[in-house]
This record gives sequence, C-alpha cells and structure tokens, in this order.
Amino acid sequence: MAVRVDLNISLDGVAAPADQTPDNPMGEDWGRLVAAYTATKTFRERVLHDDSGQGTTGVDDRYGRAYFEGIGAEIMGAAMFGFHSFPDDPDWRGWWGEEPPFGVPVIVLTHREHADIEFDNGTRFEFLNATPEEALARAREYAGDLDVRVGGGVSVVRSFLAAGLVDQLHVMVSPVILGRGVRLFDELRGLDLGYTVSSELSESGAIHVTFAR
Amino acid sequence: MAVRVDLNISLDGVAAPADQTPDNPMGEDWGRLVAAYTATKTFRERVLHDDSGQGTTGVDDRYGRAYFEGIGAEIMGAAMFGFHSFPDDPDWRGWWGEEPPFGVPVIVLTHREHADIEFDNGTRFEFLNATPEEALARAREYAGDLDVRVGGGVSVVRSFLAAGLVDQLHVMVSPVILGRGVRLFDELRGLDLGYTVSSELSESGAIHVTFAR
Repeated sequence: MAVRVDLNISLDGVAAPADQTPDNPMGEDWGRLVAAYTATKTFRERVLHDDSGQGTTGVDDRYGRAYFEGIGAEIMGAAMFGFHSFPDDPDWRGWWGEEPPFGVPVIVLTHREHADIEFDNGTRFEFLNATPEEALARAREYAGDLDVRVGGGVSVVRSFLAAGLVDQLHVMVSPVILGRGVRLFDELRGLDLGYTVSSELSESGAIHVTFAR
Repeated sequence: MAVRVDLNISLDGVAAPADQTPDNPMGEDWGRLVAAYTATKTFRERVLHDDSGQGTTGVDDRYGRAYFEGIGAEIMGAAMFGFHSFPDDPDWRGWWGEEPPFGVPVIVLTHREHADIEFDNGTRFEFLNATPEEALARAREYAGDLDVRVGGGVSVVRSFLAAGLVDQLHVMVSPVILGRGVRLFDELRGLDLGYTVSSELSESGAIHVTFAR
C-alpha cells in the first residue's frame, strides 16, 4: 500500500523541459530526457502497443517493468491528462488512445467538473477537485492492498513530496543538461533525509536513484 | 594540456548551498554535500595534512587522487580565495593556511590589485583582472605540458563552461537534496552534447559523472 512515484529527470534536476508549446506539449528536449526509457521493450509494449519484441531489455527495462507492477490506482494532474493543452475539446480522452497503459482507476486532479471516462482495459479516469491527502484517500480505497502511483506532472508530484505522502521515489537520471525547466526538487531541502537512497547505473548511461522508506 | 574541473553537486544540481554566512562561509549544507569527499584518505592527507593514514580508499578516493595529478596551474575566483568573506583583511592569505594544497601557480580572478602571495610548497597566488580566455592563456604558460584546473567557485566554473573552455568536467554527485543554491548547469542547455559522458557509482552512494572531450 505504498505511494510510488517514478520520474525522468536530467542531471540538472529538470523533470519538465522549458520549451513546451501546444504543438510540442512535452518540449523539444523531452526526447533526449526520456530516450533511454522509451527505448525499453516494456515501454514499447505497454505504452506504444508495439508487440514486435524490439526494445532494450537491460536495467532500464527492469525498472520499466517494475513501474507497472502492483499498482491499484493512479493520481495525475490536469496537465498530464491534457486538459491544459486541449482546454476546449469536450471529447478529449487523454493522450493515450483507447488503450491507456493504466488499467486501473486514475484520479485526475482538476477544478473542472467532468464525467468519468472509462475504457475496456480497466482504465477509468475520474475527475476530482481535491487536496493531495483527499485524492490519496480516494485512491487508497480503489487500490486496496495494491500501491498507489502519483504519475505526474511535476507540480503534482512536488505537492505530494512536500506533503510527505510519497513512500518510494524512483528517478531515472539521464546524463543530459537541460539548463532550464521545472525542477523536481526545488525548495525540497533535505527531502533525502527521510529516505534510504540507493543508486544503480544502466548500460544506457542512465542513473537510477531510488528513495525508499 | 587539458582544462579540468572537479566539483561536488547535489542530486538537484546545486554546487553552492544557499545558506552561506560570514560565520559559515560554505553554508550549513556544505558538510552534507561534500561528506563522502572529505572522508577520503586523499582529502585528509592533501588538504587537512592528516598523516594518520585514516580515510576511505575506495572509488571516491581514486577520484580524489586523480584531482591532484598532472595539474600545472590553477584558476579560481575571488570568492573561493576568500576576498568576499574577508574584504577588509590586508593580511588574508586564503583559507588553506601555510600549506595550500595546490603547489603550483594559482591565478585568482579579481578586480582588486594585490601583490603575489607565495608559499614554500610552490603555491603562488597571483591576482588578475581578466576574462576566462585571458586567464587561461596565462595559466597555460605556467602549466606547460601539464593540465590547468579551474577550481571554482561555481560562477567562475560556469563562465568557463559557457565559454567552451573546459575539456574535462567531473562532478561528484551526492544523493542529497539541497533545494536551493547556486546550480552548476543553469542555462547551460545541451552542454553534454559536446562531451562523452560516463558515470561510476561509489560505495559511499556518490555518483561520479565525467564529461570528457
């Protein structure tokens, strides 16, 4: 029943590049930031629905598989769901097509009122105007004995970290320098003191750092 | 004849904590940031003149030893020398006592005019009002076939990185979160693209990342 977060960050701590535009909602540098993750076999299978069997199968893929294991509910922000990029589209159903890679109830934190959106694979987006604590209580009900993921975006993750609600934080650090953008750890001085921190290097050059308690 | 930089940074990219005061010129968090480095046998011998033989001898110490090898001249800023902390002390000779751990000519970048300060162990502080390029030209004269170190502080290192003058950058990343302070990589977007980047984990938990060209 842990609360888990997994994010990609640059060596300078940026989790969301600065150059986001409507046409390029993740920013031009996003590709460099997540290259090693999106190259994994698990990402290709679970997110891209690519069943060709291609993709890397090393350390990065092991973390990629673990990402999807044992999660009973997910929490995300309105921006991650896409409300900020497509504010005027009443039929918007998220970025992920008709097979979102969640398969569980997903609480979308938003001030907007919206009916639930359900998919055949078990994914159900539910829209909630709530504090992190309230959203987590709801997610725990759905997750039962399984874990809750706080998926993103960065500002939502930061609010859960600041509130002390995260039990396991895994950051995949890509050795790239973005120079600007939204930093995961700003003003979270001493965050590490509440966790046991361990690191692992990948063949890809990525550095996996895990904060666990 | 490479230009080399070695710095300690936090996992959030901070190289100089925010909480510097005259009484605590490196900041309260400095100890956490450099703990694994200052625990090495090499640091204790070379900087603290502790010949007891104590100190760690693993990966961190290997980088610590390499730090002192092959350097023919050093460049540092006025703040690192201590001018900003002790602006009114005409007898200030740096933080390092009578055996500064350099043993080579050290160019201190400052607007202040000051006579050279020499020590028996070969260290000579020379004060220069110059651009990074000009300072480097002078340092290369002194270093001959050896390398030039840009020692710090962070703003001086950043100016050399921005000018493309650094051939090898080694950062010892401590898995601590400082949350604020002077970040090494701010606005240096894409810095990594000019280098081959490699990483190594230490038993201490530190992550050594080297940018080389």
